[in-house]
Amino acid sequence: MPIDKIVVQRLGDELAPQLVADRRDLHRHPELGWTEVRTASIVARRLLDAGWQVALGRQVHADESRMGVPDAAELTASYRRALQQGADPELAPALADGFTGVVGTLLLGEGPTVGVRVDMDALPIHEAATEDHRPHREGFASINPGVMHACGHDAHTAVGLALAQALPQLRDQLQGTIKLIFQPAEEGVRGARSMVDAGVVDDLDHVVGFHFSTGWTRSEMIAGNGGWAATRKFDVRFVGRSAHAGGSPQQGHNALLAAAIATQGLYAIPRHSEGATRVNVGRLVAGTGRNIIPPEAEMMIETRGATEELSEYMFRRALAVIEGAALTQGCTWTVREMGGAQSAWSDAALAERVRQAAERLGPMTIYEPEPRGGSEDFTYMMRRVQARGGLATSISLGADPLGIGRNDPDRKRVLGGHTPFHDLDEEALPLAVRLLLMLVGDLLGS
Amino acid sequence: MPIDKIVVQRLGDELAPQLVADRRDLHRHPELGWTEVRTASIVARRLLDAGWQVALGRQVHADESRMGVPDAAELTASYRRALQQGADPELAPALADGFTGVVGTLLLGEGPTVGVRVDMDALPIHEAATEDHRPHREGFASINPGVMHACGHDAHTAVGLALAQALPQLRDQLQGTIKLIFQPAEEGVRGARSMVDAGVVDDLDHVVGFHFSTGWTRSEMIAGNGGWAATRKFDVRFVGRSAHAGGSPQQGHNALLAAAIATQGLYAIPRHSEGATRVNVGRLVAGTGRNIIPPEAEMMIETRGATEELSEYMFRRALAVIEGAALTQGCTWTVREMGGAQSAWSDAALAERVRQAAERLGPMTIYEPEPRGGSEDFTYMMRRVQARGGLATSISLGADPLGIGRNDPDRKRVLGGHTPFHDLDEEALPLAVRLLLMLVGDLLGS
Amino acid sequence: MPIDKIVVQRLGDELAPQLVADRRDLHRHPELGWTEVRTASIVARRLLDAGWQVALGRQVHADESRMGVPDAAELTASYRRALQQGADPELAPALADGFTGVVGTLLLGEGPTVGVRVDMDALPIHEAATEDHRPHREGFASINPGVMHACGHDAHTAVGLALAQALPQLRDQLQGTIKLIFQPAEEGVRGARSMVDAGVVDDLDHVVGFHFSTGWTRSEMIAGNGGWAATRKFDVRFVGRSAHAGGSPQQGHNALLAAAIATQGLYAIPRHSEGATRVNVGRLVAGTGRNIIPPEAEMMIETRGATEELSEYMFRRALAVIEGAALTQGCTWTVREMGGAQSAWSDAALAERVRQAAERLGPMTIYEPEPRGGSEDFTYMMRRVQARGGLATSISLGADPLGIGRNDPDRKRVLGGHTPFHDLDEEALPLAVRLLLMLVGDLLGS
Amino acid sequence: MPIDKIVVQRLGDELAPQLVADRRDLHRHPELGWTEVRTASIVARRLLDAGWQVALGRQVHADESRMGVPDAAELTASYRRALQQGADPELAPALADGFTGVVGTLLLGEGPTVGVRVDMDALPIHEAATEDHRPHREGFASINPGVMHACGHDAHTAVGLALAQALPQLRDQLQGTIKLIFQPAEEGVRGARSMVDAGVVDDLDHVVGFHFSTGWTRSEMIAGNGGWAATRKFDVRFVGRSAHAGGSPQQGHNALLAAAIATQGLYAIPRHSEGATRVNVGRLVAGTGRNIIPPEAEMMIETRGATEELSEYMFRRALAVIEGAALTQGCTWTVREMGGAQSAWSDAALAERVRQAAERLGPMTIYEPEPRGGSEDFTYMMRRVQARGGLATSISLGADPLGIGRNDPDRKRVLGGHTPFHDLDEEALPLAVRLLLMLVGDLLGS
Repeated sequence: MPIDKIVVQRLGDELAPQLVADRRDLHRHPELGWTEVRTASIVARRLLDAGWQVALGRQVHADESRMGVPDAAELTASYRRALQQGADPELAPALADGFTGVVGTLLLGEGPTVGVRVDMDALPIHEAATEDHRPHREGFASINPGVMHACGHDAHTAVGLALAQALPQLRDQLQGTIKLIFQPAEEGVRGARSMVDAGVVDDLDHVVGFHFSTGWTRSEMIAGNGGWAATRKFDVRFVGRSAHAGGSPQQGHNALLAAAIATQGLYAIPRHSEGATRVNVGRLVAGTGRNIIPPEAEMMIETRGATEELSEYMFRRALAVIEGAALTQGCTWTVREMGGAQSAWSDAALAERVRQAAERLGPMTIYEPEPRGGSEDFTYMMRRVQARGGLATSISLGADPLGIGRNDPDRKRVLGGHTPFHDLDEEALPLAVRLLLMLVGDLLGS
Repeated sequence: MPIDKIVVQRLGDELAPQLVADRRDLHRHPELGWTEVRTASIVARRLLDAGWQVALGRQVHADESRMGVPDAAELTASYRRALQQGADPELAPALADGFTGVVGTLLLGEGPTVGVRVDMDALPIHEAATEDHRPHREGFASINPGVMHACGHDAHTAVGLALAQALPQLRDQLQGTIKLIFQPAEEGVRGARSMVDAGVVDDLDHVVGFHFSTGWTRSEMIAGNGGWAATRKFDVRFVGRSAHAGGSPQQGHNALLAAAIATQGLYAIPRHSEGATRVNVGRLVAGTGRNIIPPEAEMMIETRGATEELSEYMFRRALAVIEGAALTQGCTWTVREMGGAQSAWSDAALAERVRQAAERLGPMTIYEPEPRGGSEDFTYMMRRVQARGGLATSISLGADPLGIGRNDPDRKRVLGGHTPFHDLDEEALPLAVRLLLMLVGDLLGS
Repeated sequence: MPIDKIVVQRLGDELAPQLVADRRDLHRHPELGWTEVRTASIVARRLLDAGWQVALGRQVHADESRMGVPDAAELTASYRRALQQGADPELAPALADGFTGVVGTLLLGEGPTVGVRVDMDALPIHEAATEDHRPHREGFASINPGVMHACGHDAHTAVGLALAQALPQLRDQLQGTIKLIFQPAEEGVRGARSMVDAGVVDDLDHVVGFHFSTGWTRSEMIAGNGGWAATRKFDVRFVGRSAHAGGSPQQGHNALLAAAIATQGLYAIPRHSEGATRVNVGRLVAGTGRNIIPPEAEMMIETRGATEELSEYMFRRALAVIEGAALTQGCTWTVREMGGAQSAWSDAALAERVRQAAERLGPMTIYEPEPRGGSEDFTYMMRRVQARGGLATSISLGADPLGIGRNDPDRKRVLGGHTPFHDLDEEALPLAVRLLLMLVGDLLGS
Repeated sequence: MPIDKIVVQRLGDELAPQLVADRRDLHRHPELGWTEVRTASIVARRLLDAGWQVALGRQVHADESRMGVPDAAELTASYRRALQQGADPELAPALADGFTGVVGTLLLGEGPTVGVRVDMDALPIHEAATEDHRPHREGFASINPGVMHACGHDAHTAVGLALAQALPQLRDQLQGTIKLIFQPAEEGVRGARSMVDAGVVDDLDHVVGFHFSTGWTRSEMIAGNGGWAATRKFDVRFVGRSAHAGGSPQQGHNALLAAAIATQGLYAIPRHSEGATRVNVGRLVAGTGRNIIPPEAEMMIETRGATEELSEYMFRRALAVIEGAALTQGCTWTVREMGGAQSAWSDAALAERVRQAAERLGPMTIYEPEPRGGSEDFTYMMRRVQARGGLATSISLGADPLGIGRNDPDRKRVLGGHTPFHDLDEEALPLAVRLLLMLVGDLLGS
């Protein structure tokens, strides 16, 4: 028996003020991946208060599977910052040292297990401080310099908190188990793998992810995304030997030159006939001074492929290029894994359930998935659940603050993600809560 | 009639305490090239107090000939810092905006004109804070983070101040004109050209430069250095267009890749049969993030040649490489001149006068010049004076704080220049003053 | 009214001996692209003898649209060789200088116009001279050293000659116009464009191409191929300046180095999000001697794209890379267009007519098209006919001489195209003639 | 007692017609390095006829020390050609298989041992066939297509033959031992090492080499050359894997790209502060066809240095570059040594003896040596003799056929070496014979 639509709509209405307040509080206190101590401690406290079982920190992360964790100094500094900004002092210690995931579990008797994934981290972007940027104008812009929720994870977390509040109120209508999975470090696709490797999704029959998109209005959505590229994110460091460039250049081993050779070699990895591949050297920093043969070089690299096989092909070729480039200059080299994601497609059957849930709530324009070469580490959860026989889907929800539709000729004006001007339509938040309540209700309807 | 040796030695003894005090005060307040407002204002005040005519700031610099001047924000900040740290408030305004040279002139009747060049700037190095580093142990280490007198210009300026004090006291024994030329921005060979182009050395019959060397004890020296490489220092900036590396790589114009191609091309500029050449890409910073086609790249480059012709050959070839590399990626490029020096040799006749002056003062081991591929912008002054029929010499004076001679098998232990542990033998300072007084006395002896 | 199957089968049987004789004669006298003077003159003579109107040489080629034409010396030498080997002395002159196309037209009253394209040229391959190679064993291997029909165009031409013989015999059953288009220089995709630009296909309602494939048996086929990559074939020549590498390297402008830089830049052209792209530097020859700075370099390059837009994107980027690479070394550069093809898909409606014709003749396994990244210049004809509202199809016909089917696990043993051991199943030839007669009959059936 | 000048001049006069005849015969029958079977057999026969002891072939070469020997097919073909062109059929067999050196020894009692080195090989150059080229006009141009004496070794050998004739006639005036060393394969610096390693120069007290220069008239010379660069000549072959560039580029391992990367890396080997270095990729041939990922690449490379240490530095760095470049593309690589030379300077004492001998014969302008970055494998002989306590010198003798002196403003008009128009002043030949007779006479004068 499907869940009562009236109840769901009422819950959405009641939660709307809190949703906006939470989103704005989180927006004001953004935290980078693996340092979401304030955010995660608030999440855990709310889950506990609402009656959820809570696992967190090292309980929900496989240590070695975490990728791109900041160094100890940064973790320490951000932990202190989090406490100053209102992290829960009892729960924070369990979230220290780069273990900031939280999982709430609600046991509602016999029935399937449904997981909803919520990501929490912000981006290394300076938020705009101009009058036309609402967070600044209305006083909830980031207080952490150089850090900003520019991809909507503040809104995702607010929705997750609303679900934590609302779902226990529906317990009479549901049978089964619900898991709310609050994941750190989605940016850079660093966090999901360590939660999957800790077994967090191994008991799920359905897993659902969602993301707001500022490219569409709140009446537009995708019920089952797919086509993400598998990807590898890694840093390479070349170490050679410095020498005075005028006095004894022959004594140097030029790490900058090794990096330049590697760069050209990487972009020249052969295209693959079985599908799209990508490679990028997104950043290169090398050398110590104008007149010194550069002893060190650091590169930030990513490879992608339409499938894991293609991604691994690119990665394998990249390693050969890097090793060869190092050898030409007599340099040593190290590779550090910084992130990764798999390719994945939503299950049509679960996407159809999403569509039905959405349409029960009102008219909605639902698009087909549009693979665009991007990556997302929710794919680790999708693929694990699918591999164990479950279903997965990833939902995109329109939240354009300007209210311009996807088909509008002026669509270019959207305030895109990953920019200092990112903002979103806060009226989309209760809609998302309603949809997810309706979907969970359908899946666990008694 | 040569100057009285007894008088010179007495002056050296009297000035010794002030020399150490000045050197330590300057060491404690190091200032980077073109921001030596505190140093230069102190120099100018002392010259005025001792009766010298003083020209400074825009009077002694050709604006367009300055190289590697910091940006306006940095000039403003360092000007404020200089005032806080004791810059002379009356004289500082004339030294603002990157015009920090000072020239003192002492007119002593008919006779030749002798110039002595003194450099004043420090290096972008964090000074060591360990007990075995005397400036730290004795409390005169740099208070300006990341800035340090690691090449002895603090001692050079202290010697210059002592000359300003002492030379007027010898006016009865001298006939002619003396110019003390306090030059900014020697590091990176950025400052001398603009003083030469302002005509500062056009009236000199003799020009003398000096430099302390921690590779020798204070009883070792070179009377007439030579063989510096001509050099060009320049920054290159490539600007392309960013694009998402997964979603639309074809829309990017990859500035990092342009820089990598340029790097390889630069090192591959053909060797030249007429003499030694050099090229180095000392630093490369490019890109904004791992998943973005890099829209910008910055390179710090230098070329050198045993002669100006060879240096210009390298520079000309480098420009072709850079332009071509930019074109391959559809990037634009700009070159910014950051420094430069000429090749030069001291005149044997003037070096002989130095040798005679040194030997009148006591036993001294005098070495032949050792060209080593390094560069020095005093060469601009030497070449201008030589071109107008005058004589030039550059003196190197031993000042090893460990007292280890050049021929000692343990010589590797020296505390070399351009390191966080640089220090020097302060007893070498009065010796330098005596030598320069004796030399000027000989040249202007009535 | 469809054509009489019995008549068609009988014609096939009657023509079989001649088909084999013609194929073997052509196999023995292979001619490279634009030098098919013997082949084309024989074709033209047979068309005339069978009552076709014939246009040839400059009548059927737009001069400037020809690509990859050999130089004058080679054209002259091969013309002489053709005459010695039996070219028709009356017709040969019209085919000289690289104008070797022939078009036969048969006017059969009111009705649609159908064109069939036949390619005639051979490859620069040395034919195998071993006993297991039938052409050698049976005495019809190539007598022109280094030239070989290793792609089956000998069989294609034999089929075309059989059609020229047979179609006039069916004139009572047909209404419309038939054009047999004998195209030179398909290898390297050089010849079709100049025939299209001369208007050869502008009057066609249907255009049909066909190709034997040694990957399948004679009971396997594709009725409507598609998915060829658009491509550009071009040669690049860098010219610099030689110099003695020991004595005066600085006087050189290194064309080999320019080519090396271009090579790396070409492979590094960004992948495109809208479809597959390719680039290859298939051959590079540079330099004159070990101790000379290389003054010249020659590169053979191709770019491809799933669409013309993608191919042009690659070509445009390639030109920028080449120009930039030349500039880095102070070299000049020239690009010479050597070939090209468009992307294309067969029209389903015409492929269906092919399928029907095939099935009327007997059981046949018909596969779907398999795009594989290859290119074919029949696409120029297809696209022109399609652009004017007509229909086009390209047929692949199995001719594995070993009789191993596509699904056989031993399929790797096939005697592939473009190898010294290429051969084909001669029993496939009359089958091809029957199919094409049946198809033309259907299309022009009165 | 010095040798009688009158006798020497008379011998020179008598030998002049034979000198020209021999030079022209050799010019007409040029032979590349290691294939000088005709030349060497004629030399050996003449030595025997004149009473010299003769060692040749494997007797005077260390097998493994030969460099750049042609392959067996080429050796066989050229051996046959030599016999057809008049090689001595009795002596030729001992000179087969690339062992073409000949040493004549004349024992004249107690006294020092003097060696004179003569090189015999020609260059792979097509001789000019124009009326302004005297060898063509007068009928002694090369009859071997693509091979030419364009560096004067024909004249050197003619002088050697004249010495073989003349020296026995002076036996009464000489005491000691004379060795005439006819060396193959000087071009490419391939032949001398294997003679040195066979001990050919181990008994010499003095070794003398000589070379005609078309840059000066016959009254200009250098008595003791020096400053040749040490050098390594080597070929590199990369082997990867071919693949269709459109259909499966990922299956390829691109040897052409490896060579391009190696090329850039080679030219970018750091300059050395201790002296001049050089590197050149003089030739690169790679790839099999436009649409095939190139499976093979061949490079002809040389490195040089002002000293052996510098040359080895370059070679060692080059190997690292090559290995690294191969690795980037998953290719294998091989290096084949093709030639080499050492650095060397003539001994001043022996050069002074040359000067004295020259001046006794008449007025002569004698220049100081001019190091120019070139290489010469006579250096192996010089260095071996010097290492064992003997003296060495290399003489350059003017032979400008236009009679234009070194200081002439039109000097550019000289007919330089290594061009299709090379020729020389045949009147310089008897002068060379006289000088060498005079020198040997002085050194062995009784």
